[in-house]
Amino acid sequence: MAGSTYGTIFRITTWGESHGPGVGVVIDGCPAGLPLDESMIQKDLDKRRPGQSKYTTARREGDQVEILSGIFEGKTTGTPISLLVRNQDQRSRDYGNIAELYRPGHADITFDAKYGFRDYRGGGRSSGRETIGRVAAGAVARKLLETFGITVTAYTRSIGPVWIEDQKADFSRIDESPLRMPDAEAEQRALAYLDTCMKSLDSSGGTVDCMVQGLPAGLGEPVFDKLDARLAQAVMSIGAVKAVEIGDGTKVAASKGSLNNDCYKTDSDGIPYKASNHSGGILGGISDGSPLLLRASFKPTASIAQTQSMLGRDGKCHEESIHGRHDPIIVPRAVVVVEAMTALTIADLLLVNAASRVENLKKIYAADRT
Amino acid sequence: MAGSTYGTIFRITTWGESHGPGVGVVIDGCPAGLPLDESMIQKDLDKRRPGQSKYTTARREGDQVEILSGIFEGKTTGTPISLLVRNQDQRSRDYGNIAELYRPGHADITFDAKYGFRDYRGGGRSSGRETIGRVAAGAVARKLLETFGITVTAYTRSIGPVWIEDQKADFSRIDESPLRMPDAEAEQRALAYLDTCMKSLDSSGGTVDCMVQGLPAGLGEPVFDKLDARLAQAVMSIGAVKAVEIGDGTKVAASKGSLNNDCYKTDSDGIPYKASNHSGGILGGISDGSPLLLRASFKPTASIAQTQSMLGRDGKCHEESIHGRHDPIIVPRAVVVVEAMTALTIADLLLVNAASRVENLKKIYAADRT
Amino acid sequence: MAGSTYGTIFRITTWGESHGPGVGVVIDGCPAGLPLDESMIQKDLDKRRPGQSKYTTARREGDQVEILSGIFEGKTTGTPISLLVRNQDQRSRDYGNIAELYRPGHADITFDAKYGFRDYRGGGRSSGRETIGRVAAGAVARKLLETFGITVTAYTRSIGPVWIEDQKADFSRIDESPLRMPDAEAEQRALAYLDTCMKSLDSSGGTVDCMVQGLPAGLGEPVFDKLDARLAQAVMSIGAVKAVEIGDGTKVAASKGSLNNDCYKTDSDGIPYKASNHSGGILGGISDGSPLLLRASFKPTASIAQTQSMLGRDGKCHEESIHGRHDPIIVPRAVVVVEAMTALTIADLLLVNAASRVENLKKIYAADRT
Amino acid sequence: MAGSTYGTIFRITTWGESHGPGVGVVIDGCPAGLPLDESMIQKDLDKRRPGQSKYTTARREGDQVEILSGIFEGKTTGTPISLLVRNQDQRSRDYGNIAELYRPGHADITFDAKYGFRDYRGGGRSSGRETIGRVAAGAVARKLLETFGITVTAYTRSIGPVWIEDQKADFSRIDESPLRMPDAEAEQRALAYLDTCMKSLDSSGGTVDCMVQGLPAGLGEPVFDKLDARLAQAVMSIGAVKAVEIGDGTKVAASKGSLNNDCYKTDSDGIPYKASNHSGGILGGISDGSPLLLRASFKPTASIAQTQSMLGRDGKCHEESIHGRHDPIIVPRAVVVVEAMTALTIADLLLVNAASRVENLKKIYAADRT
Repeated sequence: MAGSTYGTIFRITTWGESHGPGVGVVIDGCPAGLPLDESMIQKDLDKRRPGQSKYTTARREGDQVEILSGIFEGKTTGTPISLLVRNQDQRSRDYGNIAELYRPGHADITFDAKYGFRDYRGGGRSSGRETIGRVAAGAVARKLLETFGITVTAYTRSIGPVWIEDQKADFSRIDESPLRMPDAEAEQRALAYLDTCMKSLDSSGGTVDCMVQGLPAGLGEPVFDKLDARLAQAVMSIGAVKAVEIGDGTKVAASKGSLNNDCYKTDSDGIPYKASNHSGGILGGISDGSPLLLRASFKPTASIAQTQSMLGRDGKCHEESIHGRHDPIIVPRAVVVVEAMTALTIADLLLVNAASRVENLKKIYAADRT
Repeated sequence: MAGSTYGTIFRITTWGESHGPGVGVVIDGCPAGLPLDESMIQKDLDKRRPGQSKYTTARREGDQVEILSGIFEGKTTGTPISLLVRNQDQRSRDYGNIAELYRPGHADITFDAKYGFRDYRGGGRSSGRETIGRVAAGAVARKLLETFGITVTAYTRSIGPVWIEDQKADFSRIDESPLRMPDAEAEQRALAYLDTCMKSLDSSGGTVDCMVQGLPAGLGEPVFDKLDARLAQAVMSIGAVKAVEIGDGTKVAASKGSLNNDCYKTDSDGIPYKASNHSGGILGGISDGSPLLLRASFKPTASIAQTQSMLGRDGKCHEESIHGRHDPIIVPRAVVVVEAMTALTIADLLLVNAASRVENLKKIYAADRT
Repeated sequence: MAGSTYGTIFRITTWGESHGPGVGVVIDGCPAGLPLDESMIQKDLDKRRPGQSKYTTARREGDQVEILSGIFEGKTTGTPISLLVRNQDQRSRDYGNIAELYRPGHADITFDAKYGFRDYRGGGRSSGRETIGRVAAGAVARKLLETFGITVTAYTRSIGPVWIEDQKADFSRIDESPLRMPDAEAEQRALAYLDTCMKSLDSSGGTVDCMVQGLPAGLGEPVFDKLDARLAQAVMSIGAVKAVEIGDGTKVAASKGSLNNDCYKTDSDGIPYKASNHSGGILGGISDGSPLLLRASFKPTASIAQTQSMLGRDGKCHEESIHGRHDPIIVPRAVVVVEAMTALTIADLLLVNAASRVENLKKIYAADRT
Repeated sequence: MAGSTYGTIFRITTWGESHGPGVGVVIDGCPAGLPLDESMIQKDLDKRRPGQSKYTTARREGDQVEILSGIFEGKTTGTPISLLVRNQDQRSRDYGNIAELYRPGHADITFDAKYGFRDYRGGGRSSGRETIGRVAAGAVARKLLETFGITVTAYTRSIGPVWIEDQKADFSRIDESPLRMPDAEAEQRALAYLDTCMKSLDSSGGTVDCMVQGLPAGLGEPVFDKLDARLAQAVMSIGAVKAVEIGDGTKVAASKGSLNNDCYKTDSDGIPYKASNHSGGILGGISDGSPLLLRASFKPTASIAQTQSMLGRDGKCHEESIHGRHDPIIVPRAVVVVEAMTALTIADLLLVNAASRVENLKKIYAADRT
């Protein structure tokens, strides 16, 4: 249980380091009969690929995925889907000077504490390349969800001090935006802010919002596998995430019951509708059928070119700077990772929920028996 | 996998509804040889017991725990520890008028959607009484952690608009404070605020902070069972929690790398020390040996006596108010629940980490073999 | 993971020692909407209850089950079902003389080796009373399976040298038979054999056969959760079982492919049928729709009144005899335990299989969405 | 949970079909600091490789393993170890004539029943090539066990009617024997028997015995993760295994307590020793420190060249024969698979047991804290 497996029925296991032969994932439990090919997965991988703009690392990786198993004649067979992405551009010499140092904000010190030593080339397992397996598996989960009319959409909500506002959001521009911001005006300000950060050899944090639409009511298992609890684990497990919020998130603490409760009203046709969505689509850990809303706060990229005071393996402080290629902000590339973790969680709970009622099972087994 | 089990090695399974015969928990995987008796568990249960002040529900429950298994001659045997608390004060008649209504902010509608029907007496499984099993098991986990010098302390950070400040916190008064606030002056303002809420038949949200001290470095399993990811699941699984933050939490999004990285400095004796703790004691999902800091945001109690517009099982809107006994704020009683979920998570990852190195295993098996 | 939990979706956790306050089980993941009351569970518990004849221990236990949660208005709610059986007749004084000895064939020595000490009163957790939780949960699983036309029937196949033959089996007499043998003539010989064993202060082994009828094809998950693999774990986990066989079992090793393959023939109406069932209803770890057949071999009761040479905690050999009340054969009471473990395994794999195809899921979620 | 994952702490996930790009395994939870390279794994893979003699399939596969992650500077890092073996010789045209037929004794019919269709090229996921992942992972587990002085040795006990006897066994010749039989004389008879089978276009079954030496007492988790229960699952999950026996196995059913109990005697120096090992080294599901003994019964190879009456996807019977390259007996190549599954099970339970006592944990965490 070294923690590289996620999910109960739709279950993924990721593997790989930044400077080994490759990274990948095995998906076990994907239902049979889902149309799937490499291009569907590649599309999501391309969204997290480095080198897309000057705001992402200049490391050049094609990140081409190869399907090694689990597909036959264009459809999933129900058996494990193994996905492989070879590492190509492994300039491990860049990291030589920090093999004996613990980079601030990185997992160097904790991996050493846990395992006694570590693969110090570019973060090893704690590198951002680890998310390739998540994104590749997430693309499969997303494809499965689409079969049931469920869509998962994330975007950059803020970069440093620059926030977008709901009323200005144009979700159609997310994919074409270098910062994945659905607000062109805010994006200009964010770009200016990032330029400032880069000039001062610094980095910025930001937030990602994710919404799920078309979600059926009833997903999530009380008590510990609640939909929000599982999403919190899934999203917090992404490197650099320090907060996960559902619906109104931290704002609820200062609110009152009369304001925070989502009441129902009757529309002009006399049909009741949920008049607000403070809960973010989840009640008691179970989806209520309205849009699911979550937010993740990302810390600034830990690798900055400024000289920092670092602890060394020798037990002494060292004034050093970190070379190598690093994003001044990881949020734009992390958007698709948030989508992936959300899609994986919902796919898993969708399958788990299939067995929640005798009535559901009768639909399956009655048909099989006659 | 209806979700009532939590943990990999130190694993708990809770059960019970608010108006059935009782609630309880089975702890499987607690190591043998831990001194334990009912009084140690009762102490934590008493902290979440209702009827402690006018700010907590008037429901009278002794909530006396009975140990049904797993203890012999005052010590854990390594076999499952089954803990039972009988329900006593089950005035289910109070809930009769809402059997056909979906209370706003409650899980009524989602349980019906998931299972086709529900135990409508007082929330059933989604009642706050469900946390009794968590707290009882958490007391055992806490006892285990104390063996290794690890302490878990939570307290009320805010109630509505009233926040305590770090410099004014006096942690020695937490247990005696009716609101579990370590700041007497802030508590007075919070009490006044709650009186206002109660007069307007309303309720308040709040936040709970939790810190873990004495934690060894190395706990947490990359990639999906990171310490922060597992804590996020554990704490978000508590009813009414809508946000979980680690260290600086949501603040990191507006920060810069040069500010957010925790650097090391050298003290007057030339010994390096971590000069800040923005990370909250976790790097790459693994503890770094400094204090662990997390925060949970609780929504206001959903049950308020105001008339609200509720959806009914008949598909129509109804103007109704909710009778029964409810806390105007759940935060003070939830403090020990946050401690419990934190302790359970750390206990589990402490046991899991025992197998992380060949060197660790040699300490155990070498001794056994000679 | 002290091993007291079994199952992925239909998941049970048992607890309790022979001489503590009680024993029990929590069932998590039973689908909502299954009619259930205590009498259905009690019926199976009565089959394993001691004191039924002179061939079972004279220990008097009512073994009355109490449902503590998970049922509302006569049906399962989808939440955990907690079942409790209080221990009544705990004559722990009988065991005093062996507190310092390791009884041959018992787990005394291994529990001490594992945990450093043990509850020495009557076997503690390794007592046969541990199976009460299995049988109680098994009764619920069996009730679920009956909803889909699946029945699980076990019986005594052999006692010592006495075997029943297929052609003489009358399954209608299993429940009324003190030895659970479906062959009255063989039973007479078995009873005579047991009388001989008892006179010589000895005990006998035996075998239990179990068949499952009405099983849909498709249950079992390749590769490690194959139906036969999971059944092997489930049945081998019963104390005293030393062998598990599927279909022709050990006989296949001496067979040839041309004899062992189950071919299809055409009946007089031109309809194909499976002309033999050497495989016991499982191919590639997945049910094929024909009857499932398994066999468990039980060792003789380890507790015998003869003087035996036992190792003591003092590291020396001691010539001692074991007092107390013990069955000269455990097979008749174990029959319902084999049924329980089989039913639990099939119920779990039935629920897991619900998510095996996109087509299955469409039956559930399509209906929910319109 | 499509069942391709095995283990709680030392956890493997296998993937791959016989005629896809390759097969492989991800090992998660292998402790850090274990020396490992490809040659150690290749050694075991070579034992199951086809084409070793005329008694194994003529299919030519190099089966070269590539380590994709988890190793740094010759040692395991504690992160997932991904192992890949490319498929080379995929003559899928051989299988074309049976795409529409269900081969007797194969999983063709059950995969179709479960998933709606299947990869019909050579068995797909149910092919014997699936065991490559098991063997590769088993080699890592075996290496870990050797660190603690634990060895796992399996061999062919019988082929058809030919059994070896204990007193004639020469374990030093297992690896050089084409049939993995530790008895040269019996092997000659077995070879003659196999020649007969091959001439009649038939196949033979057989048995594999496995012994584990140097095992510490205390491994195995009551109740459902008993050492024997987990071994039963592990070994029964190997294709073609129809029975698993521990110690005396099925023989115990006809035995008596006075014969089956393993008593202790005193040797000439006054030191007690276990005078017999009917239990096969396991009591109450926990190892007792004596050699662990298990046996697996394999059915005859299902693919035979004789004409057989097969059911077709068209619902009719067909008289057909199966072309392709098949072993007349799979036992010799399965010997290393039994070793692998045994080693994987013991490695996992060794790691799980590390957390069984507070005393064990103090050895690890006390040292870390001072």
